[in-house]
Parts: sequence; C-alpha cells; structure tokens
Amino acid sequence: MSKEFNILLAQVHEIRDLAATLALLEWDMQTYLPAGAADGRAAQMETLAGVVHEKLTSRAFAHALESAEAAKYEPGSFEAALLRKLRNNFEKERKMPARLVREIGAASSAAYGAWLRAREEQKFSSFAPHLEKLLKLRQEQSALYTPAAHPLDPLLDDYEEGLTVAEIDPVFAVLRKEQTALVREAADRKQPDDSFLHDHPFSTKKQLELARFAAKRIGYDFRRGRIDLTEHPFTTSFGLSDVRITTKAFPQLPLSCLFSTIHEAGHAIYEQGIDRKFDRTPLADGASLAFHESQSRLWENQVGRGLPFWRWFYPYMQRKFPGELGTISLERFYGAINRVECSLVRIEADEATYNLHILLRYDLEKALFENRLSVEELPEAWNEKMRQYLGLVPPNDLAGVLQDVHWAGGSFGYFPTYALGNLIAAQVWSLAHKEIPDLDEEIASGRFAAFRAFLREKVHHFGASLPPRELLRKLTGTEKINPAPFLAYLREKYLP
Amino acid sequence: MSKEFNILLAQVHEIRDLAATLALLEWDMQTYLPAGAADGRAAQMETLAGVVHEKLTSRAFAHALESAEAAKYEPGSFEAALLRKLRNNFEKERKMPARLVREIGAASSAAYGAWLRAREEQKFSSFAPHLEKLLKLRQEQSALYTPAAHPLDPLLDDYEEGLTVAEIDPVFAVLRKEQTALVREAADRKQPDDSFLHDHPFSTKKQLELARFAAKRIGYDFRRGRIDLTEHPFTTSFGLSDVRITTKAFPQLPLSCLFSTIHEAGHAIYEQGIDRKFDRTPLADGASLAFHESQSRLWENQVGRGLPFWRWFYPYMQRKFPGELGTISLERFYGAINRVECSLVRIEADEATYNLHILLRYDLEKALFENRLSVEELPEAWNEKMRQYLGLVPPNDLAGVLQDVHWAGGSFGYFPTYALGNLIAAQVWSLAHKEIPDLDEEIASGRFAAFRAFLREKVHHFGASLPPRELLRKLTGTEKINPAPFLAYLREKYLP
Repeated sequence: MSKEFNILLAQVHEIRDLAATLALLEWDMQTYLPAGAADGRAAQMETLAGVVHEKLTSRAFAHALESAEAAKYEPGSFEAALLRKLRNNFEKERKMPARLVREIGAASSAAYGAWLRAREEQKFSSFAPHLEKLLKLRQEQSALYTPAAHPLDPLLDDYEEGLTVAEIDPVFAVLRKEQTALVREAADRKQPDDSFLHDHPFSTKKQLELARFAAKRIGYDFRRGRIDLTEHPFTTSFGLSDVRITTKAFPQLPLSCLFSTIHEAGHAIYEQGIDRKFDRTPLADGASLAFHESQSRLWENQVGRGLPFWRWFYPYMQRKFPGELGTISLERFYGAINRVECSLVRIEADEATYNLHILLRYDLEKALFENRLSVEELPEAWNEKMRQYLGLVPPNDLAGVLQDVHWAGGSFGYFPTYALGNLIAAQVWSLAHKEIPDLDEEIASGRFAAFRAFLREKVHHFGASLPPRELLRKLTGTEKINPAPFLAYLREKYLP
Repeated sequence: MSKEFNILLAQVHEIRDLAATLALLEWDMQTYLPAGAADGRAAQMETLAGVVHEKLTSRAFAHALESAEAAKYEPGSFEAALLRKLRNNFEKERKMPARLVREIGAASSAAYGAWLRAREEQKFSSFAPHLEKLLKLRQEQSALYTPAAHPLDPLLDDYEEGLTVAEIDPVFAVLRKEQTALVREAADRKQPDDSFLHDHPFSTKKQLELARFAAKRIGYDFRRGRIDLTEHPFTTSFGLSDVRITTKAFPQLPLSCLFSTIHEAGHAIYEQGIDRKFDRTPLADGASLAFHESQSRLWENQVGRGLPFWRWFYPYMQRKFPGELGTISLERFYGAINRVECSLVRIEADEATYNLHILLRYDLEKALFENRLSVEELPEAWNEKMRQYLGLVPPNDLAGVLQDVHWAGGSFGYFPTYALGNLIAAQVWSLAHKEIPDLDEEIASGRFAAFRAFLREKVHHFGASLPPRELLRKLTGTEKINPAPFLAYLREKYLP
C-alpha cells in the first residue's frame, strides 16, 4: 500500500467507525431506549449523521481519495475494490445538492408522521400531499443523474448498483405470467389445516429459546453478535465483529419468531462471513440489497420452510411444546406451515405469493415516475392491481396502499430488491445442490457447515468488493438474474 | 440571548450530543457487547473521542466562545453559568499539550493491562513500573498549573472544582482522630448475627425485582431511564431524558443488589432532577464528584440502611423471601445489615469504616506527589497504614495495594471525593430533617416525594451551574465541608 492509500484508509476507518456508532444509536432506539428519551436520541442521531456527512464531503477526504487513486492497483485487489467503491459513492454524493438532501430529510420526517396518522384514520387522503412532495423531490434527484433510460433507474442504483428498469422488466414479465398462474393453481388446491397453530397460545419465552437455538445451530456466531427484542425485527452491523439481530414473538403465531430470527440470522451470517480485512471500510457490507435479501430468504424459506430442516428440527419443537404439538405428525406440521394463500399484506405473505406483492408496487412506482399515475389515483390503482394479482380487494387503505413504510420514508425503487432477492436465493439454492449432492441429508441431520462454507466461498467473503452483477456472474456464469430456478422451486414444492 | 451566544450554544449542543454518544458506546460495552467485539468497540470509542476533542479544541469553538463572552450576562443566568463553565474547561484543556494527553492515555491503557495481570499473580512488583510512569506523567501535568500550593491540587480540581489539599487536610484530620476512635469503640461491641443472610442462596431474579421496585418507589424515573445488568455497577447519562443505571446480583449477598441499585438510583435521581433547560450542555451534570457521591450515599446509607426505610420495606422483602426471612424479626434484620467491621477491601466496607479506607489512600497519594514515598515502597506503606487505620494487615497485594482500579487508570486525587461525599450527605441529611420534621415517618410510610422535592430544590436542579463550594454555601451557609454532622450521625447510629 502506498503512503497516500494509508492516509485515505485512516480516514475511511474513522468515517466507518462513526457510521457504526450511528447504527448503535439506532439499534438502542429500537431495543432499549426509555420512552421519554426519543427527542434527545433524535438530536444525537442528527448530530452524528451531520458529522459523518461533513467528513464524507470534506475537502480532506476528496483530496485523500484523489491522491490514493494516483497509484495503480491490481484489479481485484483490496485497494482497487475500495477505491472503486469510494469513488462511486463519492460521485453519487457529490451530485446531490445539500439543499436537496435536507429537503428530502425534512419531507421524509413529515411524511412519516403523516403516514402514522393516516394509518390510524385508515385513510390515504391526509398522507397524499406528503407523498406528492416526496415524489417530486425524488424525481428532481433522479433528473440530476442524466442520461438515465428511465427516471427510476438512478434510485434503483441506490439499493442495487447498476440495476435498471430495462433489466427488471423482462424478469418481472416472466413472474407476472408464470408466478400468477402457478399461485392460482396452488391456492386452488385444498390447503392443509393449521388451526392447531393458532387455537391456543404458545409461550413466547419458549419460542425465543427455540429461535436462539436454531440461530446458533445454523451458524450465527454469538461471539460476534446477539439477539434482542424489538418491534420490527432487523439486522444491524457495527463492524464485522458485532453483527446483531433482533426479533419478536407472538403467542398466537408460534412460527413467526423462529422464521423471523432465521431470516435475520441469514442476513447476519452473510455479514459475519465477509473477509475480515474489509472491516472498518464500506467493503464490509453485502454486495447489494438483493444479495442481502437472497441470503435471509434462502435460510428462512429454502432451508427453514423445507422438509429436511423440519425432519431435524421438529423433534426439538415438539419437546418444547409437548402439549401443543405432541400429537401432531411431522407431515401435518409441515403442511400447516406451507399453506399457499392469497392475502392482502406483504409482510404476512407466504413464499409462493410474496413476489406478486412486489410486482404490484413496482408497477405503481414506474407509473408514478413516468407521470402516468397521480398520487391521488394511487389507492384505486393499488386496489385494482391487488385484484389482478391476488384476486382480493383491500377493505380499507390500511390494508392497502398505507401498509408499507417505504414510500413514507422517501424510498422508491427499494421494493424490487425483495423479489430479486427471492430469485437469487433460488439460483444459489440450485447451485448449492449441485455442489453438495447430499445437502438435504446434511440439513436433515442438523449439519449446516458445508452449506455455510459454500455460501461463504461463493458469496459472503466478497462483501461489497464486487458489483452485484459481477458477483452474480462469478456465481452463475451470467450477469442476468434468472427467474427459472425460483419458479421451478415453487413448482416442485407446491405443485408436485 | 445574543446571536453570538446562539452560535456557541449550537456548537455546545453538538459536542454534548457526541459526548453522550460516546457514553452510549461505553454503556453498551459494559452491558451487551458481544465477547468478540472488544477491539472494534475500542476503535469506535477512540475515533469518537478524537472527534469530540477536535471540536472542543477547534478554532471555531474558541472563536464562538470568545464572541459570546463579549456580551454581559446577569450573574446566575443560564448564559453566565454556561460561559463560566466552558471557559473553565477550555483553559484546563488548553494547558494540556496533546502529546501529554496521548502519553497519559497510552500509559493508562498499558497500566490497566499490567494491573489485571498483577492481580492474577497477587504481586505488585510487575505493576510498579507502570504506576511509576503514570505518576511521573501526572506530576508533569500538575506542574503545568503553577502556582499550585500542593502538586495534588491541580488533579483534585479535575474531580472537584477548586478542591485543595489545604482544604482537605483539616477535615481529614478530624476524621483521622474522631472516626478511628468511634470505629474502634463500635467494632469492639458485640456485632449482631447475620448468618441468616449468607447461609443459603437468595434468588437473584427476586433480588432484581425488589431492587427495581425500590428504585421506582424512591423516585427513579423509568420513563427517562432503565436498569441493566453489568459487572461493575455505574450510572451514565445520555442527556437529561436518558439517565441509565446498572446493577449486579449475588445469591450469597442478598442486600448487595438492592443497596447498589439504590446507590446508583441516587446518582440518577440527581441527574434527572437537573433543570431541563441545561440539557445538551455541560451544565447538565452534577456540581462535582463529591456532590454526586453525596446523593448516592445519602440514598444508600442514610435512607437505605436506616430503620425508617426498613419499617416500610422489610415486609416487601419478607414477602419476596418468605422461606429465608419469614421468621427473622425487623430488629434482627436491621442489626444484621448494620454491622461494624474493620475489613480490608474498600468497596466491601460498611458506612462506619469506609472513610478510613479513603484516609489511607489520600495519605499515600500525598506522600507520592510530595516525593516522600517511592512507588516501590508503596505496598509496605499501604499495609502499614492499613494496620494503623483498621488494625488489619493484608495477606497479599490483591487484598491490599492492588485492590482499586483508580491509580491503574491514571486517576490520582479521585479518592477524597468519596469521603467528602459521605460528609456532604450527612450535612444534607441533617438539613433535611430540619426542613421536613416528619421525614422519618414519611420514609417509614414509603413516601419520598417531600424529601426528593427538598433535594431537587436545594441541590439537584442547579446541575453544574454553580461551583461546588458555592452550592455548599447556598445549602449550608458556609463554603467549608463540615465533618461534624457525619460523625454525629455515626455516633447516634452505632454508639447509642
């Protein structure tokens, strides 16, 4: 490393430490913050975010980056990867006027409050002007990054480097045709009875114990992490030696805590598997949101909702809940947790129907950004799409257009990454079966080491050192996200 | 407020937010940090401490302070108090060369490690060179603040503004004479039997429940605070709306968790009682360490170890531990928790003997700073003093000179504030009884509101807006710390 690179690296470490500290303020807010401390915490977060922004956009940092770029580094080296990532972020930051950043921040705060109130009244109309404002600001932002083939493209890129409408459209077209047909056929079949899961309460304490046990056994490293309770479960990282997950348990939804914990553990195992030399730099991240989501979904769905997993895990569950599950066979249990059902709310959707919720949102985001749809028309458009994709009409806006926080937070272009995560998960799953022929038997014996080693080698250890499309090419041989393995997976599982 | 003052205030808020965030990093380290994350956390703390130091010593801050000082503010006003405090801190900071700050930091880190290892071996000798180094550095620091009447004075001032050896000496001389005599007489009496507290384990879960209940009832506000478990209990503040305490429970020491929690709650009630307009400034602190300690000791000892408190609380304790305490009378219990016993370890000392441990340390600190004593001679001097003050000789250095972390952390001049805190606590207690004639009856009924209102009016709400001596004068009519009320309190309680 050159002297110049080391000067840059010291600054990067510092900025990254401060960003990790900001994440701790957020984690604490979502887990342990006293009720009366919200305002004080908001001030602390704003102050620290200001310091981070100041450092990122400082002349000293720009100069250090430029000086370090003067030397040539081997493509694929740590130095080259870091410089690429920093330059990329820097250019994106630089194009954003401070005024626009502030306005989006203020509008998001206001919109979030309005969204909460609108949900209480179950009415979209009071939220509409705020959404309108945010949409205008994001369109203004998008216009800074010309030429973009589609106004949503620059926003997509924030979550998934290089992702474009042109790339998503053909993939989603396949899903729109094949997944809707598949869901219709599966949902029309008689669904297994799952009343035994909901007709009496399951101890949340025992649920948490089981969830911890599962997280530990699938390979979440508690020496470099921990589990706490929160309202809306999430994973957060304060560096590669401290990746924390959160969870929640409900007495009447005995699988919610387990699946949510496995999902977050999937995110965390990804981060814990990143090459340690990337620590305290922006390379100590997932390759993209879709890749991150692919790892959480893979563990939650392909592994956690699969029959091999339950061959191993069901006896533990039965021993924990002998009164509730002692007489329920594995087959009955497995059927009950894998029902296919069209439903109104994305976060409660099963793995077979989930993507349809995303298609709906993506269609609407595109229409909004193309000015083909006005914010005012949004609730009706939502309900119409819901009828088309899932055959249901929301009884009110709370169960419809007001259900997600993303738009209220100013995030447009985020939703597609969920569906792409599902597709990548199925691609990885299919590859894993080729590389580890006895994967199902391994899982059925509670052995996850080979699978984890495969994931680490093929995905995790790269961190954010490769652009997501390059990682996909390394993994699958092509840069294109392929929906076929996902559709095949669903077909095999739900239409045998 | 002038425009200049507002510019300064915005900077003060920012610095204070960052300092609060640093405190959160520390709190998390002491409560929830995963075992493998220590190095990463140390880096984050160092980075943020650097940012705070940078801002505090920046030209922008110096300029803002100077500009704000140009206007005149009413003595006693928020503005005047804040400017005084900031100028005071600024001048102290400014005199310290950055090199010396770094060297003390590095030497403290090294000494702390050496201290831990020396404790394992129970031998002082391997720690001695580190202590020598720290002593030299602190002497160097002291020399920067000339003319000081005594080389310990500039260090005392760090913990207790304006405190000097000349002020402590006559006060401690009284204690040396009268408290040692008093302790000898009390310890010579037959001590009550307390075997029922130690001959079987007490559930730590129940101990924690009782401690929470007591903290709540004496007035610790959980809406602006919380209790967590840790190794060495402490109180920390992230602003006036978030003052957290920590505790620990031992099965064989059933009162330890309760008293420790009441002690920390005493610190926290102090901070929670500070005028809210001081929030996000250095006025949102206690007046000094001795004042802070006076509040924790007052609640722990005068209240928590008093008979009125137990008249109210003992039934709760008995109901929690019916098997263990059901047949033990209040009188027997009260006697058992108020034994007087000379012992070797400060943090296990009872309220009657505690100050003698401080006298010992203060004598040695003075001798070290006057170069009358070498570090090499320290263990022997310690043991000799221990024999004089408490009639005991430590079996090894772990129970002697290696027992406290303070010197290993580079803190000299800290210990006296513990004893002064005890003395101020007794002064406040005596005043409170004059102002609230039925205070004992109030406490015996579990009513603490009047006492808390008295403390808030006389001490808490001022925060750090007054120098400690001025606060003492407001409270007692004189700036001198008076040991008489403390000695009278001990005499009345232990030599009736």
